[in-house]
Amino acid sequence: MFIKQATVSAPVNIACIKYWGKRNESLILPTNSSLSVTLSQDHLCSTTTSRTCAEYEENLLWLNGKEVKIDNDKRLSTCLQAMKKQRERYEADRPNEPKVSQWKVHICSENNFPTAAGLASSASGFAALAYSLANLYDLPLSDPADISDLSLNARQGSGSACRSLFGGFVEWQMGRDDLHGSDSCALQVADHAFWPEIHALVCIVSDDKKGTSSTAGMQRTVETSALFQHRIQHVEEQLEDIKQAILKKDFDTFAKITMRDSNQFHAVALDTDPPIFYLNDVSRAIIAVVTEYNRVSNAEGGKRKAAYTFDAGPNAVIYAPAESMKEIIGMIIQFFPQSEPFKDPFLNDVIEGSLVPGFNSAVAKRHEVGAVKGLIHTCVGDGPRILGDEHALFDANGKPKQKSK
Amino acid sequence: MFIKQATVSAPVNIACIKYWGKRNESLILPTNSSLSVTLSQDHLCSTTTSRTCAEYEENLLWLNGKEVKIDNDKRLSTCLQAMKKQRERYEADRPNEPKVSQWKVHICSENNFPTAAGLASSASGFAALAYSLANLYDLPLSDPADISDLSLNARQGSGSACRSLFGGFVEWQMGRDDLHGSDSCALQVADHAFWPEIHALVCIVSDDKKGTSSTAGMQRTVETSALFQHRIQHVEEQLEDIKQAILKKDFDTFAKITMRDSNQFHAVALDTDPPIFYLNDVSRAIIAVVTEYNRVSNAEGGKRKAAYTFDAGPNAVIYAPAESMKEIIGMIIQFFPQSEPFKDPFLNDVIEGSLVPGFNSAVAKRHEVGAVKGLIHTCVGDGPRILGDEHALFDANGKPKQKSK
Repeated sequence: MFIKQATVSAPVNIACIKYWGKRNESLILPTNSSLSVTLSQDHLCSTTTSRTCAEYEENLLWLNGKEVKIDNDKRLSTCLQAMKKQRERYEADRPNEPKVSQWKVHICSENNFPTAAGLASSASGFAALAYSLANLYDLPLSDPADISDLSLNARQGSGSACRSLFGGFVEWQMGRDDLHGSDSCALQVADHAFWPEIHALVCIVSDDKKGTSSTAGMQRTVETSALFQHRIQHVEEQLEDIKQAILKKDFDTFAKITMRDSNQFHAVALDTDPPIFYLNDVSRAIIAVVTEYNRVSNAEGGKRKAAYTFDAGPNAVIYAPAESMKEIIGMIIQFFPQSEPFKDPFLNDVIEGSLVPGFNSAVAKRHEVGAVKGLIHTCVGDGPRILGDEHALFDANGKPKQKSK
Repeated sequence: MFIKQATVSAPVNIACIKYWGKRNESLILPTNSSLSVTLSQDHLCSTTTSRTCAEYEENLLWLNGKEVKIDNDKRLSTCLQAMKKQRERYEADRPNEPKVSQWKVHICSENNFPTAAGLASSASGFAALAYSLANLYDLPLSDPADISDLSLNARQGSGSACRSLFGGFVEWQMGRDDLHGSDSCALQVADHAFWPEIHALVCIVSDDKKGTSSTAGMQRTVETSALFQHRIQHVEEQLEDIKQAILKKDFDTFAKITMRDSNQFHAVALDTDPPIFYLNDVSRAIIAVVTEYNRVSNAEGGKRKAAYTFDAGPNAVIYAPAESMKEIIGMIIQFFPQSEPFKDPFLNDVIEGSLVPGFNSAVAKRHEVGAVKGLIHTCVGDGPRILGDEHALFDANGKPKQKSK
């Protein structure tokens, strides 16, 4: 039995200029370009093994251990069919290659972070899916243009997945081809080694309210928000400015634009009918704390030293230069005590709650343990990685491996 | 000793189209027109006695028992000087009248609702101040045009005070005279007797965070929010539409526009740098509950039956037709239990927590007692009232009366 198999990991990305709104729902074409930072796979990633052989009877996916029939899922099958089409073209040029494009696939995918954390796993998940299939099908991946091409397929699984195919700082260009979406792809602005000092603190915020799904929410915003129309006409200017800030390693401007765009995204969500809220009182308190931290930094004649951003949920991601992270983590722990001592993976030491001199602690109350139920300190990272067979998620018999918990 | 004295009460108003932003800070000229509902003075009002005699040496105000030197307060003295100027013109035409415009005044003002309730008292307070001085000075008040003229003075104390000089449904026109603000005044759209079925439930929401003052907040929005520029260009269309809805007694449209404008106001606050939050998790839960109540109403083939609106704080005001108020109060009590049984002043009966059939109770959790710390059921009401001397806030010796607590 001839079996082909490929295992990869792909990173999470968190946008500084948010994607919110589709101009074409079935092709997943956005109403504006967006830009994100790719986070290190050492701390957050999706791992996927794709496997194919002539004997498989169904396209199946095991997602965190749960079996899904791919053909019953529109987004999964759209992405798989697009990859198979690329393999067909590859085979047409190479008559001696096996016709694996005609075989069914078995795919196994896992996240190394708990789904309960409320982190968007669809971006890293669909990026890993597309990247593993590209490897399975021997498609070219050496050139950035190949990755951009691949991002067209990942995008049709989950819009922001296209940005997880590159490391570093990544733009998703909205494109102009409304009919086929052939130019709505990801491009790398700078790789992770260009500005490795950018670190990130993920604050996992507890919430007792189930939020509106981003797919449903963004369409309601497109249909009902008057302010959204203003946003999409002006957000590209912000995107150009933040690209320049990245290329100049100007953290102050990077932070200013990142925070403003996060706020503007949540503003248009609130301007939706009925309104959509993703930020809760703990998110508000994190904003107040970071704002005060930047105020103290500015008062010292300095510049912004931290930037919060929030996706479609209450979790905060705080971007900051590596050198400020100890202060920032100390500050977050001061206001949001943790149930366990926080051992920092970069300093390899426990960080205690603390405030920088001059900080006005009245900007937020000290919360109960559990308001921020976890912290992840990570940094800008590289793009998808090809992993050896020893990392495969299928065993020798082709069964998904039992994840050791 | 010749003493003149006048006692009045003035109502609270809650805007459906919000005032947020000044184009001239010293004249208090707004960036957009606004529209409000005047609430009944039977439940919420400011009472003010103005008193003058030749012997007074200082312009003094006692506000809820606290003495303030008027000449040290820019807004109070601006308003007082404007009123004295009108009196001077009156005296110029009537040489035999006493020259009371040259005398100092003593003013005593009280709210019948606790300041801790977080209800904007400056609107009713400055309206009562202007109206009591107009009476003290025998200025004409019989014609609506006289009241609109008076509103120019009240506006310079506190912008939204101009709307509290009329009952019913009131527009504050932004005007075009940027130099003197001579046309930025209040006009009545319809009086309270035109649509008396409009009731209001004030939900007093507990908050542990001190909000940004509206004066500081709105200027920051004007200076930093991109979305605000869109709002002020389009809000007048909403104002025209809600006026038509009021004149047609079309509650569905009235509710839709009221909720959208409240959300849009909070959206531009959030789009401010740094962002301004007035809504908290309890406010969000009230929005979710009212949204679900309207969804059930619509599902029954009906129309919106309630409209929430939030000013610069977490308190909700829910407008609804009188016939829906029992359901609405029951629903609010169901999610936000009260420490004391709620006795409704209109039904003269206790209302218990309850939900209408088909209501999805999962839209919000049942909160702890105290999350909504008080409810006030009121209705649309009339404009300022002239009260008899038995209601004067000064005793026979001209001392502020001790308020019996």
